[in-house]
Amino acid sequence: MDLCWHDPAGMPFRLEGFAWFHQDRLYRRLPLQPSEPIPEAVNWLANHTAGGQIRFMTDSDVIYIKAQLLKRADMYHMAPTGQCGFDCYAGVFGEQQFAGTAAFAPHEDSYTALLHRDKRRRLRLITIYFPLYQAVKEVSIGLRAGASLMAPPPFDDEGRVIVYGTSITQGACASRPGMAYPSQLSRRVNLEFLNLGFSGSGKGEPEMARMLAQIDNPACLVLDYEANCGGLAKLQETLPSFISIYREKHPKVPILLISRILPPSIDWDEELKLELEERRAFQQSLVEELARQGDDRLFFLDGGKLLGSRYGDSTVDGVHPTDFGFVQMADAILPELRRCLEIGS
Amino acid sequence: MDLCWHDPAGMPFRLEGFAWFHQDRLYRRLPLQPSEPIPEAVNWLANHTAGGQIRFMTDSDVIYIKAQLLKRADMYHMAPTGQCGFDCYAGVFGEQQFAGTAAFAPHEDSYTALLHRDKRRRLRLITIYFPLYQAVKEVSIGLRAGASLMAPPPFDDEGRVIVYGTSITQGACASRPGMAYPSQLSRRVNLEFLNLGFSGSGKGEPEMARMLAQIDNPACLVLDYEANCGGLAKLQETLPSFISIYREKHPKVPILLISRILPPSIDWDEELKLELEERRAFQQSLVEELARQGDDRLFFLDGGKLLGSRYGDSTVDGVHPTDFGFVQMADAILPELRRCLEIGS
Repeated sequence: MDLCWHDPAGMPFRLEGFAWFHQDRLYRRLPLQPSEPIPEAVNWLANHTAGGQIRFMTDSDVIYIKAQLLKRADMYHMAPTGQCGFDCYAGVFGEQQFAGTAAFAPHEDSYTALLHRDKRRRLRLITIYFPLYQAVKEVSIGLRAGASLMAPPPFDDEGRVIVYGTSITQGACASRPGMAYPSQLSRRVNLEFLNLGFSGSGKGEPEMARMLAQIDNPACLVLDYEANCGGLAKLQETLPSFISIYREKHPKVPILLISRILPPSIDWDEELKLELEERRAFQQSLVEELARQGDDRLFFLDGGKLLGSRYGDSTVDGVHPTDFGFVQMADAILPELRRCLEIGS
Repeated sequence: MDLCWHDPAGMPFRLEGFAWFHQDRLYRRLPLQPSEPIPEAVNWLANHTAGGQIRFMTDSDVIYIKAQLLKRADMYHMAPTGQCGFDCYAGVFGEQQFAGTAAFAPHEDSYTALLHRDKRRRLRLITIYFPLYQAVKEVSIGLRAGASLMAPPPFDDEGRVIVYGTSITQGACASRPGMAYPSQLSRRVNLEFLNLGFSGSGKGEPEMARMLAQIDNPACLVLDYEANCGGLAKLQETLPSFISIYREKHPKVPILLISRILPPSIDWDEELKLELEERRAFQQSLVEELARQGDDRLFFLDGGKLLGSRYGDSTVDGVHPTDFGFVQMADAILPELRRCLEIGS
């Protein structure tokens, strides 16, 4: 087949989700040389490409992906498609539909795969999602030689939705990248999303607040790090400080604070249940207190309600949502996020 | 820790889902020596333990699993937990909740893992699900030494729900075994379930109809093999014959015929869309015709409606449901299955 290979970092492609790409030319979620020390684990996890997107318009019947990863798949509770795969959605914004996942040998650290085939050769918006739990060294997009290739329509504006959190935010354990909850939200809110979930390492340190505050054009900051907070006392220490640091730089940017989704173990671990209830109450009261002090752009969403009554069947391991869990999370977060964005605009 | 290891094939455990275990003493879904030739692929896939369950009552605080598999995990679109893992539900029938998944190194073909811990040490019904896409050579259950161990409550009766089908039936690509749709149904219908889904090989051959007819005490036969049928012409050949062979032996057993779930590619593949529509129409009209001829225990369920409008986000690869897809399937099949069981009883 006569394919033409393209570098998605070049025009007319739009590369989203890597806020420092223009400077470092790396598929990386944080700057290569942060202006101040950040936790080592976070610095390493920043190479995981969760939330990265390649957007373009084409009428090519086939869309191929060629990827060189840092390592091969090695997670026990996540499919290689989610950890190391790319997937693809097609169609105009708001109506984009799943169009294909890369199939590859899970013991390989590089692959070439057909993502999508549409014999009709219609001009359409394509969004390709990067792997959630792997670093990507190189990636190319293969299109039929001679097919048209154009820039995607612009987002509604330059505002970015920044989602800071844990492994859950990063996307464990979605079946494929497009099903992580920030990815799902990005198909319904026409803005760039930055997935800053760091597995086991979303601890809300002050240096991370300062790092996030450096990101230009924030439309909303979503804080979803309770699952890594280290307990109530630690949360009481980090959260007010995190919000305060961010507020210094961005006094008017809406902040949506989401408490942790319910792990099924609360059904048999009374201590955990009480601890989570205390953390939820603390977060809610902090938001109320700051509102009384004049912050009218800080909102709280009770994560304990996101999975409804079926939280037991919503995770693979009692902690990490499957696609079933992530669909429920995205559906429940969406109206709150929209409210934040309206207030912020 | 003082653990006592138990063989789940011995009393008081109840081993479900392996209809020939009493004869072959193997975790296998078909007889080791079928009375007539069956397709080689089916014979091999019968070693995959999809649908197998270990049931018992215990007050042990910990439940461990020790497993020796035939091979290690190697699927690109399914998590090792689903392919090679065991998971565990706890609680009385009808209220069983997810209680844990085995964590293991995916490059190993054997592991020992903690499935569940409940400090309260309450006496409770435990159901452990076998791996969906792997053969299990040996398995042991580890309980706290001295903990009570009792037989589970009996099912409602001796009737068995037989589900014959494809990779989708077998459970690709559930995140863990308890989320395959037959597993989900088995938590809401208090009968033994036999998962006879054979990946890529559920072709509805007459020999498979004769094999299934040998299974004693059928309460309902679910036929869900269209996705492997080989096209409309082949389906027109196999399906009437399959039903007729089964009916000779079991004239009064309800049969629920389910057409294929919608693959997202129907949105851009007009030929496939028409082909699937023709197959659906054929299956529906066959059921209506046989009803006219007097078969009042044959029912059709339109699989194209099981995933609702979100079929695009319901699969990992355009074919195989994720947990999100399987939850929708189980929810939609349940009332039809219950209707069949009421009529059959």
